[in-house]
Amino acid sequence: MAAAGNGSAGDTKAVFAQIYYKLKEELLADPAFEFTPESHQWIDRMLDYTVLGGKCNRGLSVVDSYKLLKGTDVLPEDEMFLACTLGWCIEWLQAFFLVLDDIMDDSHTRRGQPCWFRVPQVGMIACNDGIILRNHISRILRLHFRGKPYYADLLDLFNEVEFKTASGQLLDLITTHEGEKDLTKYNITVHRRIVQYKTAYYSFYLPVACALLLSGEDLNNFGAVENILVEMGIYFQVQDDYLDCYGDPEFIGKIGTDIEDYKCSWLVVQALKRSDESQKQILFENYGKKDPACVMKVKNLYKELDLEAVFLEYENESYKKLIAEIEAQPSIPVQNVLKSFLHKIYKRQK
Amino acid sequence: MAAAGNGSAGDTKAVFAQIYYKLKEELLADPAFEFTPESHQWIDRMLDYTVLGGKCNRGLSVVDSYKLLKGTDVLPEDEMFLACTLGWCIEWLQAFFLVLDDIMDDSHTRRGQPCWFRVPQVGMIACNDGIILRNHISRILRLHFRGKPYYADLLDLFNEVEFKTASGQLLDLITTHEGEKDLTKYNITVHRRIVQYKTAYYSFYLPVACALLLSGEDLNNFGAVENILVEMGIYFQVQDDYLDCYGDPEFIGKIGTDIEDYKCSWLVVQALKRSDESQKQILFENYGKKDPACVMKVKNLYKELDLEAVFLEYENESYKKLIAEIEAQPSIPVQNVLKSFLHKIYKRQK
Repeated sequence: MAAAGNGSAGDTKAVFAQIYYKLKEELLADPAFEFTPESHQWIDRMLDYTVLGGKCNRGLSVVDSYKLLKGTDVLPEDEMFLACTLGWCIEWLQAFFLVLDDIMDDSHTRRGQPCWFRVPQVGMIACNDGIILRNHISRILRLHFRGKPYYADLLDLFNEVEFKTASGQLLDLITTHEGEKDLTKYNITVHRRIVQYKTAYYSFYLPVACALLLSGEDLNNFGAVENILVEMGIYFQVQDDYLDCYGDPEFIGKIGTDIEDYKCSWLVVQALKRSDESQKQILFENYGKKDPACVMKVKNLYKELDLEAVFLEYENESYKKLIAEIEAQPSIPVQNVLKSFLHKIYKRQK
Repeated sequence: MAAAGNGSAGDTKAVFAQIYYKLKEELLADPAFEFTPESHQWIDRMLDYTVLGGKCNRGLSVVDSYKLLKGTDVLPEDEMFLACTLGWCIEWLQAFFLVLDDIMDDSHTRRGQPCWFRVPQVGMIACNDGIILRNHISRILRLHFRGKPYYADLLDLFNEVEFKTASGQLLDLITTHEGEKDLTKYNITVHRRIVQYKTAYYSFYLPVACALLLSGEDLNNFGAVENILVEMGIYFQVQDDYLDCYGDPEFIGKIGTDIEDYKCSWLVVQALKRSDESQKQILFENYGKKDPACVMKVKNLYKELDLEAVFLEYENESYKKLIAEIEAQPSIPVQNVLKSFLHKIYKRQK
């Protein structure tokens, strides 16, 4: 079996990128549906628009994790293909969530272009495209993994992670959107629960779980690994919340609006916890308002409460705790996978 | 194993209805998510609102079909439970499609109450509820079928039927909604393809396929049965199109609006085929308009073209063809299942 050119990070990216076109072609030739020219063209365009354009961190990390588990930098062509295919399934899952989240949040742009549902002629057809994106994962898995001993585990994994993510999204929606704005609902337990379910499982646990199944492992033996990855996912989202306010807009590529959007951000949760009655009043009166003067009052309070220092302390503590938990893992390849994730995100600026 | 009280149709309905509450309770106790009181209450209410309230024809037909395949009227309690559970999975699938279809069609009412997305406080959260409804099927199947030899086949079946249905929905959306109204796009091939994928697979093939898997059969051996059921599904939808215009609103429980809604109905397809140039002009000018005068012009043309007779001829021909195909089936129990479906729908008035 050939194994040319997947050893370096750049080669991996190039091979990964190519495989998208192969998967798309297979989906458009699926014998379970007779495509008309119009529906063929629609799906082709929808996939390019919604699945491409991201950084593919989640997808690529399946390949990276699998290489670390196997202890090799170069994979046989067939294994490289399967690892990339699972990586793309996660990218499809992400596209599915983003298409529907953008509808629910009434967002305007995504990855530097209008949200899919805002494209002329698309509109609410985007709901059905979301269903199709999710379903494509099942079609891809069936085509390439049907005969594998871990096929049912793979389907169960994607189903369970989808369940957790949609449940986290529900929590977020009913906490943030429902009824009148009530900051007293926000605390660290609420924040943690939303983040854990909405982001951590599919962004951190899922890529590693895919790599483990591909290596022939039984996921029931990796409960501790799951917990560590979920903790890392929560840490990642706290960084995200921090960078939304303190990051360099030039560098992170967007202007944060968590304060305006009344988000249950880690920062507002910390601020609420550390505020006296008069400071709480400032939050109650100014959080979740578009007016730049209100936003400024919230930011000034964050400064007064020195949330930067609180964050740096949290970051250092999280790192120490995660490293200790990782080094308690019996398997060195598994440790390597977990450390590789941690070092990709620790002290990130974007 | 007890087998009390599932022999008669009324008993089956009662047992089936009870099992919904058991499945809901299990979903609300799913260990894969820590429900808060608010999210628990949300899902509880959403399920009652979206899954209940229909006639459960699809769900009940799993139980009926399974009994006919086994050649018994009374099932052991465990088999009755599994058959009802698969029936409810189809009802959940239906709820999922309806919640999202109503958003896409901007509908107002469903099953005699406001569409779920129109309920105050719900709105676009209904998109996420749709995802959760679909995902619940996977949770239910995992809980009750994980150890069965046909578990992967069951997942594949629901996935493939979802794929066909969503693809049919896409066809319908891009044919009916996209761009300027153009009746020249409508013909019997277009009608048939939309109906086949959007309705026939999940309404007719899926219940029987579930009963076959539960009986230990390999679906690969039932390609002819699939074709017959899909034909029956198409026939059923043609009846639906006919009743939308010619049915008694008192009796069918709704006032048809296919003409106003510019639907690719079997009637308009037949009218187009049978019209001379001046009659076509009437259709082009009046089809898809809310104005009752326009609707009346279309209905008068249908009368002029005697579409009632065309329909009766189609109905008789379809029946003869289906009976011949059914009687060519080698298995008598399978013939009984197919005949039972056919006799439920032949010459129906609602």
